[in-house]
Amino acid sequence: MLSLLDLCARIDSGRLTPDGAVGLVRAAIAAREPEVGALVCVDPAPAVPARGPLAGIAVGIKDIIDTADLPTRMGSALYETWRPRADAPVVARLKSLGAVPLAKTTTTPFAFLDPTATRNPSNPGHTPGGSSAGSAAAVAAGMLPLALGTQTGGSVIRPAAFCGVVGVKPSFRLLPTVGVKCYSWALDTLGLFAASVADAAHALALLADRPAIAREGDPGALRIGIVRQDFCAAPDPEAEAALVRAAAAAERAGASVRDVALPDRFGEAFAAHGTIQDYEARQALAWEYANHRNALPPRLRAALDAAQGIETAAYDSARRTAHHARRGLKDVFSGDGLDVILTYAAPGAAPSGLDQTGDSRFNRLWTLMGVPCVTLPVDRTGAGLPVGVQVIARFGDDGRALAAAGLIERALRG
Amino acid sequence: MLSLLDLCARIDSGRLTPDGAVGLVRAAIAAREPEVGALVCVDPAPAVPARGPLAGIAVGIKDIIDTADLPTRMGSALYETWRPRADAPVVARLKSLGAVPLAKTTTTPFAFLDPTATRNPSNPGHTPGGSSAGSAAAVAAGMLPLALGTQTGGSVIRPAAFCGVVGVKPSFRLLPTVGVKCYSWALDTLGLFAASVADAAHALALLADRPAIAREGDPGALRIGIVRQDFCAAPDPEAEAALVRAAAAAERAGASVRDVALPDRFGEAFAAHGTIQDYEARQALAWEYANHRNALPPRLRAALDAAQGIETAAYDSARRTAHHARRGLKDVFSGDGLDVILTYAAPGAAPSGLDQTGDSRFNRLWTLMGVPCVTLPVDRTGAGLPVGVQVIARFGDDGRALAAAGLIERALRG
Repeated sequence: MLSLLDLCARIDSGRLTPDGAVGLVRAAIAAREPEVGALVCVDPAPAVPARGPLAGIAVGIKDIIDTADLPTRMGSALYETWRPRADAPVVARLKSLGAVPLAKTTTTPFAFLDPTATRNPSNPGHTPGGSSAGSAAAVAAGMLPLALGTQTGGSVIRPAAFCGVVGVKPSFRLLPTVGVKCYSWALDTLGLFAASVADAAHALALLADRPAIAREGDPGALRIGIVRQDFCAAPDPEAEAALVRAAAAAERAGASVRDVALPDRFGEAFAAHGTIQDYEARQALAWEYANHRNALPPRLRAALDAAQGIETAAYDSARRTAHHARRGLKDVFSGDGLDVILTYAAPGAAPSGLDQTGDSRFNRLWTLMGVPCVTLPVDRTGAGLPVGVQVIARFGDDGRALAAAGLIERALRG
Repeated sequence: MLSLLDLCARIDSGRLTPDGAVGLVRAAIAAREPEVGALVCVDPAPAVPARGPLAGIAVGIKDIIDTADLPTRMGSALYETWRPRADAPVVARLKSLGAVPLAKTTTTPFAFLDPTATRNPSNPGHTPGGSSAGSAAAVAAGMLPLALGTQTGGSVIRPAAFCGVVGVKPSFRLLPTVGVKCYSWALDTLGLFAASVADAAHALALLADRPAIAREGDPGALRIGIVRQDFCAAPDPEAEAALVRAAAAAERAGASVRDVALPDRFGEAFAAHGTIQDYEARQALAWEYANHRNALPPRLRAALDAAQGIETAAYDSARRTAHHARRGLKDVFSGDGLDVILTYAAPGAAPSGLDQTGDSRFNRLWTLMGVPCVTLPVDRTGAGLPVGVQVIARFGDDGRALAAAGLIERALRG
C-alpha cells in the first residue's frame, strides 16, 4: 500500500515532487485498476499544488461526494451525466491542503446495499464490502494513499475491514457532509481510508483542522473494554479470533483489558437505527423514488417501498431512544472507567461473491451514537482475506480512538 | 392576502378547482409582481395534481432550495444557469401533498446580508427584510398563499415581521434541509410564510406529517414569559409597543403573563451564534470563496474574509456554549413554568431603503437554540409598515408555539 506519511516525508525532503507522487499513483492505477475496478473516473489533468501539507497526495473521492471538476454519479444511471456546480466542502478542504482529488471511487447506488462491480484486492472472488467499495479497494490495492467514504450503517468500517486497510469514521459532523448525497441526515458520516493508523490520523487532523487528533502519542495505560454486541447475532470464528488477538496485543503493550456488557438500552438503540435511516432515506430520496422508482436497483427500491410505511411517530420514538442511548454511552465510558471500546469490525472476512456487500450489524449502533470508530487489520484467513477489529471512543475523542488503534497496530507487529 | 385554508375549503367543496386556484395566483402575480419583485421565475406549465390535501395550493420556493423543474440561482450570478438534478425533499413533499411549487422567490445571495431588489409590499421604499425576501413579500402582497424560506440568523422571522405575514421557523430539522444550499449546518432551518397562524399550522402539520401541530386547539390558561433579550441593544419603541399590546391581548384571552429574565449564559450563547455561523459558512462556501471570491457580493465577501481567521478551538468552544444553553433553556421553561416565551420579532418596522435587510439580533439566539419560533403581525406604524411579535416554545413543541400565536392573533382581532 501507499503510505501517506511516507509520501509526505519524501516530498518534504525533496526526494519526490508532488507531480512525481501523483505519477506514482497513476502507475499504480494502471497496474491494478483493471483487476480491481475501484474507480469511476480519473482526472486526466488535475491541478497539483506545489505546496501544502498534503501537496502531491492523490485522494479518491467516493462518487456520492460533489466534485466540480469530475462527474458525480451516485452509483446510479440517474446521475450518469451529472456534474455538480461546486466541490463539497471536504473536497475544497483537501485542495486547500495541497491534495489532489484525482479519482472518483465506486459507490453502491446512493450508498445503499446493491453491490458494485469492484473486487476485493486480496481475492477478486470476494466483495470489497460497501457502500464505500472503491475507496477501500483503491487504498488496499496500493492505488491511492488516501480516500474518502461515508458511513450510514457500516459503509466505512466494513469495507475497510474487508479490504485490510485502516478506516476511520470520525465523530458525527467532525467533517461536514455538505455536498454529500444524503441518505440519512442523522447518520451519514464522512470517513477516511488509509494504509496505516498514523496515515489516517495525520489526514483527519489536517482535514478537521484539529492537530491534537494526530498528537495523542502513546496512550500509556489504556483502559479497554471488550464489547461483543450481544444484541445481534454472533460473528464468525475469525472475527472472534481477531478480537482476542487484538486484545492480547493491547495487554502486551500495557493496556488493561476487560469485558464490558452494554445495558439493554443499547439493543433498543441498535434496533432504532433502521427506523431512523429508512424514514430519512424516504425523504432524502423522495425525488428519485417519485420520478424514477423503476430505475432504482432492487435492494434500494425494496427498502424505499418498505420505508413508505414507517409512521412518523415510530421515527420520533426511535430518535428519543437514540438520544437516551447517547447519554447512556457517556456513562458506560465514565462509569466503567474506559478509554476505548474494542469490538468486532464486521461479522468475519469478506463474503465470497460480488452479489452482496456484507453485513453492517457490528457498525450500526456506533454510527447512531455518533462516536469515533477506527478499524485496523489484525489477521488474514486461509483464503488470504483480511480480518479487522474496531476501536471506539467517546464522542469528540477521535484522537484517543486513533491512538489506541495505533497502539494495537504496533503491538501486533511486535 | 390569499388564505391557504380558504383556498383549500373552496377546492374541497368544489367551488374552485386546483387549476382555478393556480389561476387566481397567476392573476395576483400579474397584478403585484411588477411593483414588488419577489419572484425569480414562475413555472409556465407546472403539474397541478387534482387531489391531495394541498391540491391547487401554489407555493413559492426560496431560490436556495433545489428544484428539478426550475432553476436554482442562490441569488448569485455564479449559479445563473444552474439547474439541480433533483427536488429538495421538502419540495418533493409539497408535490406529494398536491401542492404546486409555482415560483422561485428571491433570496439574498447565498442567504446572507447583501440585499435583493425586492420591495416591501406595504411600502416600496422599504426593505422586505432578508434573506427570505421574496417568500415574505410574495405572501404579503397576496401573490401566494404559502412560501418556503430558511433561517440561519433571522431570515424567516425578520422578513415575515417586516412584511406583516405569519412566519414559522420550526424546531431544528423538523423539516429536512437536504437539497438546501448550506450556509451553516448547525443553524440553517427551513420555515414557512402564510397569511395566518392557522394557515401556517395547517401547512407545517402536513409538511412534517405531524397532524398534532395543527390540532393543539385553544391553549387555555397559557403561561407566557415576556423576554426582552437584554443581552443585545434595545429595540425601537414600536417593537416594544407591539410586545406590550400582544401581551395585553393574551391576558385578555386568559393567559397569565409575566416578565422573565434569562440567565447570563444566554448572552454568551447569543455571542456564540456568529462564531458557529461564520466558521461553518467558511466551509460550506469554500468552493465559491476559493474560486470566485471576486464574484461574491461585498457583505458576504467581507464576512468570509473575516471567517478565515476563526480558530477551530473558538468554534468548538462556541458549540459547547450553545449546547449548555440549550439544556438551560429547558430549565427556563420547566423551572419557570412557562408554556411559551413572547419577545420581539425584530428591532422595529422594516428600515427604509433597499440597501440593507435589517437586523436579526432578536432572532439569532433562538435559531441557535433550535426552538420553534412564530411571528405574527400586531401593529402598523404611521408609514403603514407592519410590526410583529415572536412566540417561542420548547424544542419539538411547534404545535404549542402555533397555538399560542393563534390565541394572540384572535385576541388582537377581538
